[in-house]
Amino acid sequence: MLHSDVPTSTPAVTGGPIAGSTKVYRDLDGMRVPFRRVNLTNGEHFDLYDTSGPYTDTDAALDLHRGLPPRPGVVSDRGTQLQRARAGEVTAEMAFIAAREGLAPELVRAEVAQGRAVIPANHNHPEAEPMIIGKAFAVKVNANIGNSAVSSSIADEVDKMVWATRWGADTIMDLSTGRDIHLTREWILRNSPVPVGTVPIYQALEKVNGDPVALTWECYRDTVIEQCEQGVDYMTVHAGVLLRYVPLTANRVTGIVSRGGSIMAAWCLAHHQESFLYTHFAELCEILQRYDVTFSLGDGLRPGSIADANDAAQFAELRTLGELTKIAKSHGVQVMIEGPGHVPMHKIVENVRLEEELCDEAPFYTLGPLTTDIAPAYDHITSAIGAAMIAQAGTAMLCYVTPKEHLGLPDRKDVKDGVIAYKIAAHAADLAKGHPRAQERDDALSRARFEFRWHDQFALSLDPDTAREFHDETLPAEPAKTAHFCSMCGPKFCSMRITQDIRDAMAEKSKEFAEHGNQVYLPLA
Amino acid sequence: MLHSDVPTSTPAVTGGPIAGSTKVYRDLDGMRVPFRRVNLTNGEHFDLYDTSGPYTDTDAALDLHRGLPPRPGVVSDRGTQLQRARAGEVTAEMAFIAAREGLAPELVRAEVAQGRAVIPANHNHPEAEPMIIGKAFAVKVNANIGNSAVSSSIADEVDKMVWATRWGADTIMDLSTGRDIHLTREWILRNSPVPVGTVPIYQALEKVNGDPVALTWECYRDTVIEQCEQGVDYMTVHAGVLLRYVPLTANRVTGIVSRGGSIMAAWCLAHHQESFLYTHFAELCEILQRYDVTFSLGDGLRPGSIADANDAAQFAELRTLGELTKIAKSHGVQVMIEGPGHVPMHKIVENVRLEEELCDEAPFYTLGPLTTDIAPAYDHITSAIGAAMIAQAGTAMLCYVTPKEHLGLPDRKDVKDGVIAYKIAAHAADLAKGHPRAQERDDALSRARFEFRWHDQFALSLDPDTAREFHDETLPAEPAKTAHFCSMCGPKFCSMRITQDIRDAMAEKSKEFAEHGNQVYLPLA
Repeated sequence: MLHSDVPTSTPAVTGGPIAGSTKVYRDLDGMRVPFRRVNLTNGEHFDLYDTSGPYTDTDAALDLHRGLPPRPGVVSDRGTQLQRARAGEVTAEMAFIAAREGLAPELVRAEVAQGRAVIPANHNHPEAEPMIIGKAFAVKVNANIGNSAVSSSIADEVDKMVWATRWGADTIMDLSTGRDIHLTREWILRNSPVPVGTVPIYQALEKVNGDPVALTWECYRDTVIEQCEQGVDYMTVHAGVLLRYVPLTANRVTGIVSRGGSIMAAWCLAHHQESFLYTHFAELCEILQRYDVTFSLGDGLRPGSIADANDAAQFAELRTLGELTKIAKSHGVQVMIEGPGHVPMHKIVENVRLEEELCDEAPFYTLGPLTTDIAPAYDHITSAIGAAMIAQAGTAMLCYVTPKEHLGLPDRKDVKDGVIAYKIAAHAADLAKGHPRAQERDDALSRARFEFRWHDQFALSLDPDTAREFHDETLPAEPAKTAHFCSMCGPKFCSMRITQDIRDAMAEKSKEFAEHGNQVYLPLA
Repeated sequence: MLHSDVPTSTPAVTGGPIAGSTKVYRDLDGMRVPFRRVNLTNGEHFDLYDTSGPYTDTDAALDLHRGLPPRPGVVSDRGTQLQRARAGEVTAEMAFIAAREGLAPELVRAEVAQGRAVIPANHNHPEAEPMIIGKAFAVKVNANIGNSAVSSSIADEVDKMVWATRWGADTIMDLSTGRDIHLTREWILRNSPVPVGTVPIYQALEKVNGDPVALTWECYRDTVIEQCEQGVDYMTVHAGVLLRYVPLTANRVTGIVSRGGSIMAAWCLAHHQESFLYTHFAELCEILQRYDVTFSLGDGLRPGSIADANDAAQFAELRTLGELTKIAKSHGVQVMIEGPGHVPMHKIVENVRLEEELCDEAPFYTLGPLTTDIAPAYDHITSAIGAAMIAQAGTAMLCYVTPKEHLGLPDRKDVKDGVIAYKIAAHAADLAKGHPRAQERDDALSRARFEFRWHDQFALSLDPDTAREFHDETLPAEPAKTAHFCSMCGPKFCSMRITQDIRDAMAEKSKEFAEHGNQVYLPLA
């Protein structure tokens, strides 16, 4: 049951299976590991990693006011996943993750124990299905949602959360900054099938009426505890923005573009003191450890323009994040590191290399990066380019950027556009990294394409609805779904149809060849 | 005046300047070199490379039935740009290009003489403004248009041509395969301010009623001459699809996906003879040389799926394209080489390296590549990732892919989406390659962003209309165009506003510091 006041009306969310798919579960010692099963017209089926939770399950009884049913068997008195992994334990969450990813449970444990992967799973968020963020696993995608002072409502944000996970978001960050921060988050947490991240400084700032200078450690600490109790799985903490780094941003083209970074820089400068996030970091670790909340050490000085990429301010902060990583891990707290931002292509790989070196290979979690500044309204694309490249180099999770970046708050359409662009980037990186099962889906879709199984091509795609809609714009009739051409080339010029004719001809030649005593004339592969 | 029958109604095209810009010309020995001038609200201005021709010039008198006014002074009796460059001549076209690109005329000449760049400029297409394709220059973008047997009209295609060049397409390929191929092309050529490419085998196939087996050298040759006379600037010729390569495609997931490649493979197999494009290649060179038509040696065996990338068939053909490059150059014909297709990220660079090695650094011209097969309806994005990477590695021109790829013929919206995605990829590559003037635009836009000059941010962007529209969705009032925040974060959380406060505070500290005798306390960069 939701803890606090609820909106008078129930949010409307999108449910039901994704076109061409059904929800299936694999039983694993009593746990139900979810998959999206694509049922192909040739009788085969193909199971996909599934982030959508019960919303795509036609058999699930959903009640947004009650929230999702909690996962049974959550253990809260044996420390963090990191501590348990170090002790040699394969937790229920690790086993679940191994089944989802199609990898060995021991690999999951070992990567968590090394700090090369994190499982963001607050004991107080049993509604979420366990997932992992680490370079040995499929690249993950985060979708930011949340309202601002000038836009949106709780119902809108719950709808965006369900919508984003439907299309493949692996985690959600609630970045609300307006009214009703606690209540918005409560609705999101209780109904989210994926881990939820926040930036606690936003709520702390609301508590002091928006004046950064009025922030205190006590106010911040209480906010963090409130959010830990509520079930937030990971928290962005900009503890690397040190007083002495602020002047390094003075000659930047776009200064400090992280909200949290600018708030902490303003605080440091006004008080002429070191950031309370830095000076109280060990206490913060003790709090997060109790709930197994994962640190997402924020890059408050990330570059906000091509001109500012990889500069002294950015890398000074990264070095400090490396120190903080060691402290967090010594407290048994899981850590990931946030990365940029705006970076031209030739400067991307250096970010990963330095992060791995300075932060003991803690999972890297980057915002894009955008590879140019000149395309507002298309920054899901400018950044999908950078995201694919940085993920290929080892980044474990990509924070999406929507078409509205720099222009306004994303709506439902923007959320989907951002998620799909980032699923593309993540999958392209999985292919490039040789993730063991990534190419199976490409191959299945391409076989369907070559065999003119249009329904299967749609169903295997990241967005079956739009693929079908685009096809139907020119050839809407059902017979076109088995036709051996589309409107792009028309029947006479379809290379795939001609190729089939060529293969038939080659098979015929091959038969003749055999019949004529296998004399060598033309090599047939 | 258009040569042949015209549609009864005049095509409607989009004219007028791009929002926030005006058309300007720089005079160069009597030639008018066009730029798009962005007039900034701070009194500065910024000139951009401009592909849109007279359509964005409010002073131009346009008549689609007459076509664009021809460029004066076209020389047709002194050979090709390649031959003249070798002879040490800086042609009028080279001077024009140097002015457009902001580079030295001698660099243009030298790159053309080496065969590392091409200037596709048929003597019979004086309507086009000279441009260059080569790795030493800004990365270019081609937009494919053209109708098919089941879709579209001449008026639609002329409109798409103007629309694509408005948003930055550097060349157009007319890939029409339906009725009225000659007339459609005539309308496009006479009205196109950019070079036009074709695939002559499409029209040749129409002449033999769509039966590949019925094709002959004579029919093909006559079609090529017809198109040379008409003014086509470059032609895709799939002369590298040899009989012995066809069996190499037998075990591919998606066989042969190039239309021209599949047609020639079918012909070779049916006749059991080597391709007439290969056996008559020298004659073809003689024809193209007379008009200075540039070869675009087609990759008829390019991979159509991730599974087929970089395989034996693809690279066997590339080796043959290398041989043909040498033959073409020995005839004084300009050459570029077409590349894939579908290629996972880790296999992209090898394509450029091999192409440069085998084809004497002839400009590479690639279709994407798509970095995954799983996102039909979003292949402008899957391929923009690959396009940016392959351009960074040295590809000179990128053939766009629209959201409709694999699903249907692109409409007006798809054309724009494809062009913008590819302008992003091209510009990201220019930045990564360190093109001398590329970052100026990013910096100008980011400065406008930081200073809350919203109008300037829109005007400097690749698509001012959509950037403004997205901003206005949440804050439509005019005062919001100078407001120091947007709806994304709201006024309290605007990092850029807070950064300005921080800078003011730092300046204040700096002043105090000077007043107190410059005692070292806090380093101020």
